[in-house]
Amino acid sequence: MKRLDNYQDTRSVFFVADFEKSIGNYIMDADGNAMLDVFAQIASIPIGYNNPAFLNLAKDPAFQTALANRAALGVNPSKDWVDSVEKAFMRVAPVGMSNVFTVMCGSCANENAFKTAFMYKAAKRRGDKDFSLNELQSCMSNQAPGSPDMAILSFSRGFHGRLFGSLAATASKAIHKVDIPAFNWPKAPFPELKYPRHMHKEYNRQVEQESLHEVEQLLNKHDVAAIVVEPIQSEGGDNHASPNFFRQLQAICQKNDILFIVDEVQTGVGATGTFWAHEAWDLPTPPDMVTFSKKFQAAGFYLNRRLRPTQPYRLYNTWMGDPVRAMQAAAIVNEIQDKRLLDNVKNVGSYLQHNLSENNKLQSVRGQGAFIAFDLESPAKRDKFLTDMRQLGVNVGGCGEKTVRLRPMLTFQKHHADILLDTMERAL
Amino acid sequence: MKRLDNYQDTRSVFFVADFEKSIGNYIMDADGNAMLDVFAQIASIPIGYNNPAFLNLAKDPAFQTALANRAALGVNPSKDWVDSVEKAFMRVAPVGMSNVFTVMCGSCANENAFKTAFMYKAAKRRGDKDFSLNELQSCMSNQAPGSPDMAILSFSRGFHGRLFGSLAATASKAIHKVDIPAFNWPKAPFPELKYPRHMHKEYNRQVEQESLHEVEQLLNKHDVAAIVVEPIQSEGGDNHASPNFFRQLQAICQKNDILFIVDEVQTGVGATGTFWAHEAWDLPTPPDMVTFSKKFQAAGFYLNRRLRPTQPYRLYNTWMGDPVRAMQAAAIVNEIQDKRLLDNVKNVGSYLQHNLSENNKLQSVRGQGAFIAFDLESPAKRDKFLTDMRQLGVNVGGCGEKTVRLRPMLTFQKHHADILLDTMERAL
Repeated sequence: MKRLDNYQDTRSVFFVADFEKSIGNYIMDADGNAMLDVFAQIASIPIGYNNPAFLNLAKDPAFQTALANRAALGVNPSKDWVDSVEKAFMRVAPVGMSNVFTVMCGSCANENAFKTAFMYKAAKRRGDKDFSLNELQSCMSNQAPGSPDMAILSFSRGFHGRLFGSLAATASKAIHKVDIPAFNWPKAPFPELKYPRHMHKEYNRQVEQESLHEVEQLLNKHDVAAIVVEPIQSEGGDNHASPNFFRQLQAICQKNDILFIVDEVQTGVGATGTFWAHEAWDLPTPPDMVTFSKKFQAAGFYLNRRLRPTQPYRLYNTWMGDPVRAMQAAAIVNEIQDKRLLDNVKNVGSYLQHNLSENNKLQSVRGQGAFIAFDLESPAKRDKFLTDMRQLGVNVGGCGEKTVRLRPMLTFQKHHADILLDTMERAL
Repeated sequence: MKRLDNYQDTRSVFFVADFEKSIGNYIMDADGNAMLDVFAQIASIPIGYNNPAFLNLAKDPAFQTALANRAALGVNPSKDWVDSVEKAFMRVAPVGMSNVFTVMCGSCANENAFKTAFMYKAAKRRGDKDFSLNELQSCMSNQAPGSPDMAILSFSRGFHGRLFGSLAATASKAIHKVDIPAFNWPKAPFPELKYPRHMHKEYNRQVEQESLHEVEQLLNKHDVAAIVVEPIQSEGGDNHASPNFFRQLQAICQKNDILFIVDEVQTGVGATGTFWAHEAWDLPTPPDMVTFSKKFQAAGFYLNRRLRPTQPYRLYNTWMGDPVRAMQAAAIVNEIQDKRLLDNVKNVGSYLQHNLSENNKLQSVRGQGAFIAFDLESPAKRDKFLTDMRQLGVNVGGCGEKTVRLRPMLTFQKHHADILLDTMERAL
């Protein structure tokens, strides 16, 4: 891939793929080596390479029309757009979420959710009044009160994207953040649980309470419009917390009149065995916003209707999503329902979790569905493991300092799990 | 489109399109009305609706493979990716620009260019040293020195996007910015020229010098890493400046060791009669970065090789662009070359500019190629004009306060221009 040196960040490339010859859970590299793919384009392939559902869709005249005529959805949506949004996004909307806004990537999804939170909070404070002249003028030079000093509260080791707003909420690795100006937005410590969770209940309860206490302290020091959190911190090392932690976090939001944003960019669309990972929390009321991207191929966020800005052109851009990717999202939902893929994820996930837990070479095995991780002794041993696994024909990814994350597709089955487990035995 | 009320910002929708029946420069709405389209999905349709080049591409097995298998280009680029980047982007790279980085939309293109500028500036200050522990630690809580108080300087009435970094550089309309936290990044006044420019040379020279003087003043007050400017301020009202203004602006950048970013999201890909609008400036050396999106269907930015970060994972995200849109970009470049579309834009542009200039109902006619605008007497009259034009079968857009902007496709010809001119006569 030497010639690629002129373009992308080639030093991060694991290998060059031959997608034409890749199939299902197997990726073919350009040298003709087939690999079982348990990383799946950074957790973003939902239903396998060259899935017939996608290949057939590509032959559909309506799909080809959408490809050849890219709509600016804010001015001239296609007559099919309403149905497409319904079939792709609203059919699987988290309970209680009536609206959706589509964009192009996960970072943009989070940033538009943040903007929605700021506008909602400011509007609530303003009450029935219109914008003041001072607000309208001062914002044009990036000054208060028009550009207010409000914040998004996020967590240590969280990852929410790499653009200026989403990066300010991110705290996974210094190399992502250093040298880039950032808003003075606070980070609460994400609880550092011990695993397996059922063996460390009291310890884990305590660190979760400490984290929640720190959240409340930070709310006294910053003007926070929303809290954003991942159901499982993914880039930051697959860090879990209990359903009770998230329920209490939502309660803190409600008590302080701030919005609760769940970032499901990596956890969403079935990876944990439910369509949305936060379904496992049994929340008394829905989150205020839920963001998505990756496995859905399309990006955006769900919101409660009361959060919709009351003036036009406030959440806006040229394309406002991509009809082609929305049609693919609808095909993904069909495939998940027709093939009962959530059941598959639950079954394979529990089989994998059980077998990995019994392997005493692995530390801190944790998972929800097939969204599973474990630690090795050191960053160096983890990196060597990933390289060895690829050479043995299984593509696996890392996260955090010394964590291995399994991000199988929803179509990953027990016989794939057996190949993974056998290969791990050889690599370890 | 009542049902769409649950989704996008429907209050901004002009009409619902039937793309299947749209053809060339004509868009069909869902009620069966064909309209000559001189707005073209907010200046983002390059070669006409249902262009055979795009329809044929959609039938190409390689294209369908790319659609069915969305690559994370930073980990597993497809074996076709290098050629695709070469055929799409490098073949038309602005002179002197050796590298390109692809993303998903115009806002992301600008924000990644801004990040590149900050990293470059910080690395230069650091010299041969590695990051300090203090930098690596402080950035994790969004504090200096790791998160430095550096700025991007932009211009009043400029538009660079709507995410947190790009919105801080934007100053087109208050409704885009109010209530959203912003970095304390400075705005220099963009020169407010009088048109036609050849009749106001001395006045225009003077306001341009005042603007440049203010730029230099602001550089003394802020730690600026880069200046970003549009060749023609588009959303902000189609505001022009002279080639000499831009040459002097670049000279100020070089004198102060800051980077010069040209935002060609709206002006790029042939709209002004050259592939890049800044070609008209006759710069002594290339800009440091040039951003693009819209008509290219794909988004990203060109950069000089020296600006490439020296560590991996600093400019990065999951998808890092879209191979499908890159293949369309290559088809666009082919079409522009095969059909000599830049010559077409020059010819039709000068025919249109000539005829509009002679119409004494129009104020401040200005243009470069077919990227043309004029003012009407008031915002209300402008809005009524746009509505009347649509009812008479021509789709035109507005910008700024009372400006009408013509954003024809590159395939817009003299007989289309005649229809536009005749319809304007009836509407005015």
